[in-house]
Amino acid sequence: MTESIKRLQTNARMSQVVIANGVVYLSGQVPDSAGAAIDVQTKEILTRIDTLLASAGVDKTRLLTANVWLSDPKHFDAFNAVWDAWVATGHAPTRACVTALLMKPGLDVEVAVTALA
Amino acid sequence: MTESIKRLQTNARMSQVVIANGVVYLSGQVPDSAGAAIDVQTKEILTRIDTLLASAGVDKTRLLTANVWLSDPKHFDAFNAVWDAWVATGHAPTRACVTALLMKPGLDVEVAVTALA
Amino acid sequence: MTESIKRLQTNARMSQVVIANGVVYLSGQVPDSAGAAIDVQTKEILTRIDTLLASAGVDKTRLLTANVWLSDPKHFDAFNAVWDAWVATGHAPTRACVTALLMKPGLDVEVAVTALA
Repeated sequence: MTESIKRLQTNARMSQVVIANGVVYLSGQVPDSAGAAIDVQTKEILTRIDTLLASAGVDKTRLLTANVWLSDPKHFDAFNAVWDAWVATGHAPTRACVTALLMKPGLDVEVAVTALA
Repeated sequence: MTESIKRLQTNARMSQVVIANGVVYLSGQVPDSAGAAIDVQTKEILTRIDTLLASAGVDKTRLLTANVWLSDPKHFDAFNAVWDAWVATGHAPTRACVTALLMKPGLDVEVAVTALA
Repeated sequence: MTESIKRLQTNARMSQVVIANGVVYLSGQVPDSAGAAIDVQTKEILTRIDTLLASAGVDKTRLLTANVWLSDPKHFDAFNAVWDAWVATGHAPTRACVTALLMKPGLDVEVAVTALA
């Protein structure tokens, strides 16, 4: 097996970035700003995704897919406002967005993306 | 970076189809028929998936993965009846099916698939 | 279309394993031990994942991604204790972990992974 897997920011539980077979995979990102307004939480996540993509040598113009989890459908419009402004024009990924309670109180949004390496 | 990404039905928020690196990715599909019976909603989604796969030059015999979200576990059997009849014999994808409240009232099922390009 | 898709443990609904384009995809695994403690359910799933990966000719050192669904955030720490001990040192996949009610009563954890073929 000669194919390589590159793992960044890795620990015993997960890697924040895995690069293999031409694809960059990112772990689901949650904000540090638990309890903040949804737009604040979303901006924090998307900034972190930008940084993680950069660490893998790519950027958001190469996004393939996005999975979005919101703690409540009431956050949908405010999340989308930040999301739509962030997405690079002409480079929108596929997306699935559903409701899910997240692992810690006050976390209202989680986003996981993949990009072309 | 010479690899190409092809995006179909793309707007500021998402692309319904992304093709890259040998894989066809579809966005999570939800029905227009919100509030209809689960079998009606499911048939609508699966027909749309057939159409989106065709737009990418493939069909359901090339499915790799499926993610299914149901608004309530009580829909599981009725969803499966439609799903099982739709899957091409001998070509079933991997699947994960969990409960999630969707983004608009009356939406009871969302399905996101990938296929081999 | 000369690319091949290999499907293992396949039936009318899903394949437990799909191998294509350099990636091994596994269906979401749920335990038979519904109602058991979360660590028991988790160990059962991870053992099954080991077996499925072996059937595809790989092992957990080649994991790319993991999606985890827990029925309640209260299971997070106990799940992580088993998960962290299972992950091969230096080979952690990306991960997204959210809450979702699963399809049958007493099921508290579902895990879906991908690996490099």
